[in-house]
Amino acid sequence: MSDGLEILPVRGIGDVTAGDDLAALITAAAPWLADGDVLVVTSKIVSKAEGRLVEVPADGPERDEARQRVLAGETARVVARRGNTTIVQTHHGFVMAAAGIDASNVDKTHLVLLPEDPDASARRLRADLRKRGLDVAVVVSDTMGRAWRNGLTDVALGAAGIDALLDHRGQLDPYGNELSLTQMAVIDELSAAAELVKGKCDRVPVAVVRGYGRLTADDGPGARVLVRDSAEDMFGSGTAEARAEGLAEAARMPVDAPRVEAVDGPARDRASRIARELIDESPLPLVRVEFPAGEVGRLRLSPPGSGPADLVRLGAEAQRLRAAFAAAGLATAIEVDDLGEITLTYGVPA
Amino acid sequence: MSDGLEILPVRGIGDVTAGDDLAALITAAAPWLADGDVLVVTSKIVSKAEGRLVEVPADGPERDEARQRVLAGETARVVARRGNTTIVQTHHGFVMAAAGIDASNVDKTHLVLLPEDPDASARRLRADLRKRGLDVAVVVSDTMGRAWRNGLTDVALGAAGIDALLDHRGQLDPYGNELSLTQMAVIDELSAAAELVKGKCDRVPVAVVRGYGRLTADDGPGARVLVRDSAEDMFGSGTAEARAEGLAEAARMPVDAPRVEAVDGPARDRASRIARELIDESPLPLVRVEFPAGEVGRLRLSPPGSGPADLVRLGAEAQRLRAAFAAAGLATAIEVDDLGEITLTYGVPA
Repeated sequence: MSDGLEILPVRGIGDVTAGDDLAALITAAAPWLADGDVLVVTSKIVSKAEGRLVEVPADGPERDEARQRVLAGETARVVARRGNTTIVQTHHGFVMAAAGIDASNVDKTHLVLLPEDPDASARRLRADLRKRGLDVAVVVSDTMGRAWRNGLTDVALGAAGIDALLDHRGQLDPYGNELSLTQMAVIDELSAAAELVKGKCDRVPVAVVRGYGRLTADDGPGARVLVRDSAEDMFGSGTAEARAEGLAEAARMPVDAPRVEAVDGPARDRASRIARELIDESPLPLVRVEFPAGEVGRLRLSPPGSGPADLVRLGAEAQRLRAAFAAAGLATAIEVDDLGEITLTYGVPA
Repeated sequence: MSDGLEILPVRGIGDVTAGDDLAALITAAAPWLADGDVLVVTSKIVSKAEGRLVEVPADGPERDEARQRVLAGETARVVARRGNTTIVQTHHGFVMAAAGIDASNVDKTHLVLLPEDPDASARRLRADLRKRGLDVAVVVSDTMGRAWRNGLTDVALGAAGIDALLDHRGQLDPYGNELSLTQMAVIDELSAAAELVKGKCDRVPVAVVRGYGRLTADDGPGARVLVRDSAEDMFGSGTAEARAEGLAEAARMPVDAPRVEAVDGPARDRASRIARELIDESPLPLVRVEFPAGEVGRLRLSPPGSGPADLVRLGAEAQRLRAAFAAAGLATAIEVDDLGEITLTYGVPA
């Protein structure tokens, strides 16, 4: 590793339009580029060069409608929505406000989409620069928000000639502790560093990081490896959306359902404890609850009287209790006998 | 703005222990420090100098128990939990895995906590350096994960002598579009840039950013302004936690509840449409549903027969339907009459 880094702005690139040769524009603006440099290129000029613009009305409700249509096209999955803000997962897998669609630094009748495949864009630009005799890494960057923190930072959408992650796992610190979780998203850090010399209105769409020194001989894995599999993400949906999904789950609990296998084995005592706690915590004044002796995994629910209203309330309370079980991670089924008594079976979800 | 930035590692600081004078250690290791520099200091050495260590057993279940106790003490709120990973909001407001408690770069019988007030730590260090004739900004940094992305980056926990956010709002881009949302978290970007020359095992706990040029005369607002109010955050809880909360909400819907005001005015038609859609989407085969003429905001639910089991099922289906209404943002109440017929009132939540 060299002793330090330099972050150098590339000025004078000017307007980029569809079909422009970015390698030519960049080398003309920065004849001082050198082998080993990391070029951090704002995705906006990559998109423009690639013609990733859509025409929209300049104003009025037609503009809003057109924006919504464009957003829908760029969206693989809505992650969260509040007021005018929509956080979506794009087809690339990035989770971004408004799918990264941008109306700034473009005339009012166009929107700029993200490059279709930012890793491919980075590889192409790297190859084009190579043809000009320059051996550099390329990072395509964009601006993103971050959950739980105010303010935006630049991160990487694409990369070539550099590893996205620098892996410290397995290394020992000076005290002999193994570093078990430390994989640094260095291309995000390079993008952030580059943004510091770019600014937003200064027409500095490219910055060079000199001295980083960990370039790869091949294109490497790209920024794609930074996309976390949403099944592994603890924040795959917005809080309000996930809460509504929990309610919807309660709404889907069928009244006449296939029987749940009563828990057995080591999970039995835990489930039984949860059941008793739930009954204690949310008393059902309109229902008599029995834990039949020797029948772990089952409850008997009976109405306090035999009037029609008592029976209706019993059914409603049973469904409430099932939602409480579900919130505690236990699946349930109910069976209603001819007298209106309920057997509630609880178990682990199939 | 100067033409570029330099990121310079500060080597040779060595082990830091409680009571150490960081200003003395840093100026001795970096006699080349200059006015206008931004010092990015890893929170670990700030914590060590401030004695923010706790003793824990070196191994065994006692170590795990002690870690859990320490974590609970540093936790204001658990945000999400999966397996061994716990994401919490700390008393400072930061959302971090394991509250930023660290067992690396410290001997096996200690854990390092975050500084108690990282902004105050930054201000103290800045003042101490000032006494030595140096006019610099100080950022206290740490390593954090990011929702939806693999890999970690360094971000700022504390700052003095520099604005946390660089505000582009209200500026016009070259096309005359107003930049409405662009506040850059520059101290996060400075922390990320500094990390690139630090590494994890290289004993480089401080880096200097030279040429940034936007230092403030006073200490400024600190990193605290980067903490987003959790009420404003769309990801205040983990997805699984929020989903369980939705189920728990269904479990709390009281069967005999205060009446909900039936919707009126402009929300009426929307609510009525949602109600009809819900009934269409989740048919309740065991229930007869009527929308009484002229009574928007009310449904009549009756059992298909008068047997006890029919009445119990009616109650259960009514509760299911209420969860569906809640998922669509509508509050409900049910009233059961003596014949076991249900009036379900739906409206906007109080």
